[in-house]
Amino acid sequence: MTQPTPSAAELDARDPLAALRERFSLPAGVVYLDGNSLGALPIGVHDRLANVIDQQWGERLIRSWNESDWYNLPLSVGDRIAPLLGVGKGEVVVGESTSVSLFRVLAAALRLRGDRQVVVTERENFPTDLYILDGLRQLLPSLEVRFWDESVSAAAVLDGAGVLMLTHVDYRTGRIRDMRELSAAARAAGALTVWDLSHSTGVLELDIARDGADFAIGCGYKYLNGGPGAPSYTWVAPALIEQVRQPLEGWLGHKSPFAFVPEYEPAPGIRRFITGTQQVLSLAALDESLKMWERVSMSEIRRKSMAQTSRFIERVEAECKGYGLTLISPREGQLRGGQVSFAHESGYPIMQALISRGVIGDFRTPNILRFGFSPLYVSFADIDRAVATFAEILRTDAWRAPEFASKQTVT
Amino acid sequence: MTQPTPSAAELDARDPLAALRERFSLPAGVVYLDGNSLGALPIGVHDRLANVIDQQWGERLIRSWNESDWYNLPLSVGDRIAPLLGVGKGEVVVGESTSVSLFRVLAAALRLRGDRQVVVTERENFPTDLYILDGLRQLLPSLEVRFWDESVSAAAVLDGAGVLMLTHVDYRTGRIRDMRELSAAARAAGALTVWDLSHSTGVLELDIARDGADFAIGCGYKYLNGGPGAPSYTWVAPALIEQVRQPLEGWLGHKSPFAFVPEYEPAPGIRRFITGTQQVLSLAALDESLKMWERVSMSEIRRKSMAQTSRFIERVEAECKGYGLTLISPREGQLRGGQVSFAHESGYPIMQALISRGVIGDFRTPNILRFGFSPLYVSFADIDRAVATFAEILRTDAWRAPEFASKQTVT
Repeated sequence: MTQPTPSAAELDARDPLAALRERFSLPAGVVYLDGNSLGALPIGVHDRLANVIDQQWGERLIRSWNESDWYNLPLSVGDRIAPLLGVGKGEVVVGESTSVSLFRVLAAALRLRGDRQVVVTERENFPTDLYILDGLRQLLPSLEVRFWDESVSAAAVLDGAGVLMLTHVDYRTGRIRDMRELSAAARAAGALTVWDLSHSTGVLELDIARDGADFAIGCGYKYLNGGPGAPSYTWVAPALIEQVRQPLEGWLGHKSPFAFVPEYEPAPGIRRFITGTQQVLSLAALDESLKMWERVSMSEIRRKSMAQTSRFIERVEAECKGYGLTLISPREGQLRGGQVSFAHESGYPIMQALISRGVIGDFRTPNILRFGFSPLYVSFADIDRAVATFAEILRTDAWRAPEFASKQTVT
Repeated sequence: MTQPTPSAAELDARDPLAALRERFSLPAGVVYLDGNSLGALPIGVHDRLANVIDQQWGERLIRSWNESDWYNLPLSVGDRIAPLLGVGKGEVVVGESTSVSLFRVLAAALRLRGDRQVVVTERENFPTDLYILDGLRQLLPSLEVRFWDESVSAAAVLDGAGVLMLTHVDYRTGRIRDMRELSAAARAAGALTVWDLSHSTGVLELDIARDGADFAIGCGYKYLNGGPGAPSYTWVAPALIEQVRQPLEGWLGHKSPFAFVPEYEPAPGIRRFITGTQQVLSLAALDESLKMWERVSMSEIRRKSMAQTSRFIERVEAECKGYGLTLISPREGQLRGGQVSFAHESGYPIMQALISRGVIGDFRTPNILRFGFSPLYVSFADIDRAVATFAEILRTDAWRAPEFASKQTVT
């Protein structure tokens, strides 16, 4: 057995983020490596929701729209996310699913590009991003979609394009796309950029305005720990926002929502990206979860994340050698987000066997074992335990038991 | 003083729905007449959310997508709403705001009408419905919008139209549009109908398929008591659903969401109206709230609602005579939904004075006092107390106190 130096105990002892783990409610006996899909439960959420339900809704009823400022939650929650993107307060708004937010920004970006109705994206993008693009194309039959991949020059594909729409961190491999370089290529071609940050925010050190993003959206329930299906966020470059119109115009994005006038006029700033009345219970859970980022350094988050994913790769390759695993995440830390993925032809039953022993990652078709490392609550000891369990399952063929064979709807 | 016969106590004693009030957590000393804006808190919601947060999210984490069937919540919650619309199970789906749901069905309906890209609606429609239509027109520049009102024949305005989009119960006056007659006129003209049922569901006895609706959407947080910003619902006529495409195509409306294929293919049935991952906390609250409808007769709801709104009108007109109030709701019960509205030039401070004395209605610009009567929890004694307070405020000029003068953002 390879004994890594330093030990997990030493690394945990000197981890400046280690105390944050105490702010989560984690089940006993579980190593949770799926925070890139659904983040763990922050302890404050239970009491916050009890208060929103019993006091704000139950006791104060309709008055809470003012008294508890439900009305501004989409913006105040956005202000908590802004520092994680490296952007300013008042630039981010929260609401509805990531897919709906993507539709809004994609249509808004195209509208700014006049007759350059061409969107460049990747065929390997997260599928819902492609579906949203396809749905928009139903409405805009002249919309042309082009696919880029690393085998061709971005500049060539971007020629004449209006929008470059990319996901920053790939959901299967964890590979990071170079936002600065690709945004510059888009700008040089006269195209605007739309970035999906779902697998980036909360685990990478982002500075999206510096790196040339024009629009960005992302998910509230992964590294942000906002709870199942937590609402998504939307950012638009301040230089563009006052000229932007998004197509899901609703009353709470209106300049004067309670004037009830028949003509739509967008609110100033990012508020115009609100459509209708937002789901306050889910917003409040996300708001509470985000409080723990207040004093967190994103460079420390990134440093810990790279150390953890590196250690996991090294230890799996040492302990699980010869069992047919292939690393499909980038080996170089700078190119890798917060997850590590291995391909294995029996990936599905192996992951089920891991989960049955309390090591929770997930499986993605066709053959990918994904492990996500949330620096707020994953310890180095967790990593060593996960690797030991992984090695044992492979060594003993435990994953060949019939109970691990059948695929369920969602993993 | 006019003494109505029978007394409130008698009416409450023989109200077959009276026991349902015990299933709500209502603040002491309050008469809540704003359930048409935000329904009151059902008692079960607190424990349900505690369970979803602590057990499902906290303990079981990602596994709850299967184990607690979060994946099917949009449909299972829809199944609870279906009987309130008079439609079948498997025909209703829940998610996102009413405005977003309207966008989906409106675009879907227009897509079925080929080159008849004309939408007929009312200028007096709820403004967000008009804003959504305007947003869609940004994407579809050839879309023509025509306004209908009662001064002209619907048939004439519908000539050549593709879609008739109406709100069933007017948010200011509570006036009911005749769904059967207007849907028939649309059908005769070759147009599909889109109905906004936000102020109808849970207070009227609906049979929307019989009455000729093709598409319907509505709100989860009014008479359905789903909590602040609760998700909305969508129904599509079964005869149409398999040919319908909606533009907010997302992965959870895909036929095989976990195949992660780049091409979109809609799921069978109403599931295709799901876009992305839904907000589970808000969905669970709505799900819990809807349980109390299981054994409720909608004809009894409607009977009580008409009795309550009639009593309120009669008593206000008797007790508050000579203070400048004008009834703007239909006097005939069959034409009136679950609310009663009076116009008064000082409507805003009068409503603030009422609220300060524990009678909670709301104000709508420019001069409307709205009172909503949720038959699940409003008693006849509430009505008498509200009228007595209303009369006292008018008689004593209490509403002229300076603290009631300034307008807040939301009421």
